[in-house]
Amino acid sequence: MRDFVYYSPTRFVFGRKMVDTTGAEMAAMGFNRVLLVYGKGSVVRSGVLDRVKASLEAAGVLYVEAGGVRPNPEVNWVRDAIAKARENEVDGVLAVGGGSTIDAAKATAFGIPYDGDVWDFFAKGQKIEKCLPIAVVLTIPAAGSEASASCVISCDAENRKVGTSGDIFRPKLAVMDPELTFTLPPYQTAAGVTDMISHICERYFSGVEAVPVTDNIATGLVNALIDEAPRALEDPEDYDARATIMWAGMLAHNDIAGCGRSLSPTARAGGWESHALEHELSAHHPEITHGAGLAVVMPAWMRYVWRSDPQRFLDFAAAVFGIEPVDDEFSPRDEAIEDAVEVAIDELQAFFRSLGMPATLADFGLTADDIDPLLETLRVNKGECFGAFQKLTLEDCRKIYESCL
Amino acid sequence: MRDFVYYSPTRFVFGRKMVDTTGAEMAAMGFNRVLLVYGKGSVVRSGVLDRVKASLEAAGVLYVEAGGVRPNPEVNWVRDAIAKARENEVDGVLAVGGGSTIDAAKATAFGIPYDGDVWDFFAKGQKIEKCLPIAVVLTIPAAGSEASASCVISCDAENRKVGTSGDIFRPKLAVMDPELTFTLPPYQTAAGVTDMISHICERYFSGVEAVPVTDNIATGLVNALIDEAPRALEDPEDYDARATIMWAGMLAHNDIAGCGRSLSPTARAGGWESHALEHELSAHHPEITHGAGLAVVMPAWMRYVWRSDPQRFLDFAAAVFGIEPVDDEFSPRDEAIEDAVEVAIDELQAFFRSLGMPATLADFGLTADDIDPLLETLRVNKGECFGAFQKLTLEDCRKIYESCL
Repeated sequence: MRDFVYYSPTRFVFGRKMVDTTGAEMAAMGFNRVLLVYGKGSVVRSGVLDRVKASLEAAGVLYVEAGGVRPNPEVNWVRDAIAKARENEVDGVLAVGGGSTIDAAKATAFGIPYDGDVWDFFAKGQKIEKCLPIAVVLTIPAAGSEASASCVISCDAENRKVGTSGDIFRPKLAVMDPELTFTLPPYQTAAGVTDMISHICERYFSGVEAVPVTDNIATGLVNALIDEAPRALEDPEDYDARATIMWAGMLAHNDIAGCGRSLSPTARAGGWESHALEHELSAHHPEITHGAGLAVVMPAWMRYVWRSDPQRFLDFAAAVFGIEPVDDEFSPRDEAIEDAVEVAIDELQAFFRSLGMPATLADFGLTADDIDPLLETLRVNKGECFGAFQKLTLEDCRKIYESCL
Repeated sequence: MRDFVYYSPTRFVFGRKMVDTTGAEMAAMGFNRVLLVYGKGSVVRSGVLDRVKASLEAAGVLYVEAGGVRPNPEVNWVRDAIAKARENEVDGVLAVGGGSTIDAAKATAFGIPYDGDVWDFFAKGQKIEKCLPIAVVLTIPAAGSEASASCVISCDAENRKVGTSGDIFRPKLAVMDPELTFTLPPYQTAAGVTDMISHICERYFSGVEAVPVTDNIATGLVNALIDEAPRALEDPEDYDARATIMWAGMLAHNDIAGCGRSLSPTARAGGWESHALEHELSAHHPEITHGAGLAVVMPAWMRYVWRSDPQRFLDFAAAVFGIEPVDDEFSPRDEAIEDAVEVAIDELQAFFRSLGMPATLADFGLTADDIDPLLETLRVNKGECFGAFQKLTLEDCRKIYESCL
């Protein structure tokens, strides 16, 4: 087990109607006057925003609204929100929404006490020294931002999407009410589950030796998602299935599934190869949902790299799909291993398909001609060579993309 | 999944030589002058205390010593420590040791800012409103106190041992260096592992329906312990085995293995029946180590109650031991279930025995005559009837104890 620091200080308030306790929870934690951050409509239409406001009012927590966060939140929105927050002298930020809204709230929270421009934290790697306390009401389980140390913001002017990380901006409070997710469209539910499984796999295939405690947690989460996600698609109001997805999505990304698996104690476990490959896809083709892109590139990445450490994939195959290599006189050990690993990857991809996710770039209408532009920006964002499980050159990445056609 | 609140705000610094970072970590968290709490000798003899002191001195964190905590820490020790802490105006408490030392430090930390007597929190259920920040250097993995919301203190004058709980006294920092546990005697290692598995099982068999995410985490932890603990006994300096035990012991009791499994959002999951039964054993016979007592009473409790919810035990049997009921024309379903459950409980008990743990009350030199006194104090501590998986009367408890003879 590699050395690690693990710090997930969020208070999770999880369950039916918990959204109505938001104000009381925040008041008890000392929030007095907050910036209320939300997106472009669904939390308004669903009535969730009104319930949050009512609970804030009942608890005497004042709020100033900053709505209209878009998917892939933009730095200009954050700049405006920071100005509004300063003007109103808020002492905290409350996000009501999914990963984009939460990331916008995070950037606002650490932008407020900073004298320079908030984009410095993303473009210049400026260290985050101060951050206002953040609370979250989660409405879309997928990104895990409700407890993660991650924040991703886009800058349209520079055509970039950049992440930063830090324990300092992990939310203090996350209100998680699975009933709020009953109305999520099936495609969004499925893409969210795919994203969660990818968050777990990026850490599981991190290029370091087995860590039994952490690995069992990781495959336990994947198994719970594989068992329960189909129930949520079959019956969108299956509370337990929705609750499983919501809680597993948090655990997939708060780093409990990576403890002891990173090369440096303070770095996140894993090389995040699938995320890097997907990032270019959805950056160039904004109509591609992040999770749907992952459903395509992650199995392809797995097929390309598993020979670097077959045992790691055999462990995954056994723990998640109950697949063991069968070698006998007719099938030598090498072939048996290859069969087992390939079948396990096929099973994973079949699971994503069963949820309604795509399996090829063609499913997005892309062709071989679309690959070069992906590689160009991949070079800018990741360099000539990246990865932890196996180092990938841009030529390797080309082959992975081609295998997705 | 039942509603729950989960809050585990401890910063975990885990790995080789991390003990030497204690001072720097504490200085970064704002500790200036602390009460340094430790036990009766092993941390002194091993040199761990000196390493902690050196790291505090290097980081400029002042300390006042309060040593001599005994197993089952006593309230008079805590009263003295509170007086010393006040006299020296400390701003935090640092425990170096195992569960007893940490519990003594916790009681001191919330006793300092309280005007009354610290025993009020235990004997009178006084609510804990304030607590000084607590840091821990863990040397004995077992009790899970390094991250738990639990604290147990004894009062010799009243012949009582009473626990209290509260998120307010969860440690802010836990330094966990598995190398410190290389010198733990085998019996203590084994008793610690048994205690951890019991912490998980108390939550797993909590009398509520399956919670896939949490249940997979729980059985994943048990599996990791069953796989790795024998390695630590075989080679006490097997780092990965020691690390597994140390990390699993924390996760067994910080409530991550109980999320969604309790009847009330703010209560711990489970009825803690085995702990209640063991508590009387080690209270009456102080030579009995808590974990060793659990190795005897927990399987007996399981055999007595499983028929209340056979499916729950079948789930455990399958996930931990790969045991499935086999029913065919020769063996009807009921018998197949009984076989599967009883074999799984046998396997669990055999595992405890393989670690060197006892299996019967006779192994402690106890006889049928020793049972009545246990029931008398059980009545005082738990009442006529208690339990969550199945309500137990004192007559039920007598039968469970008798089955251990």
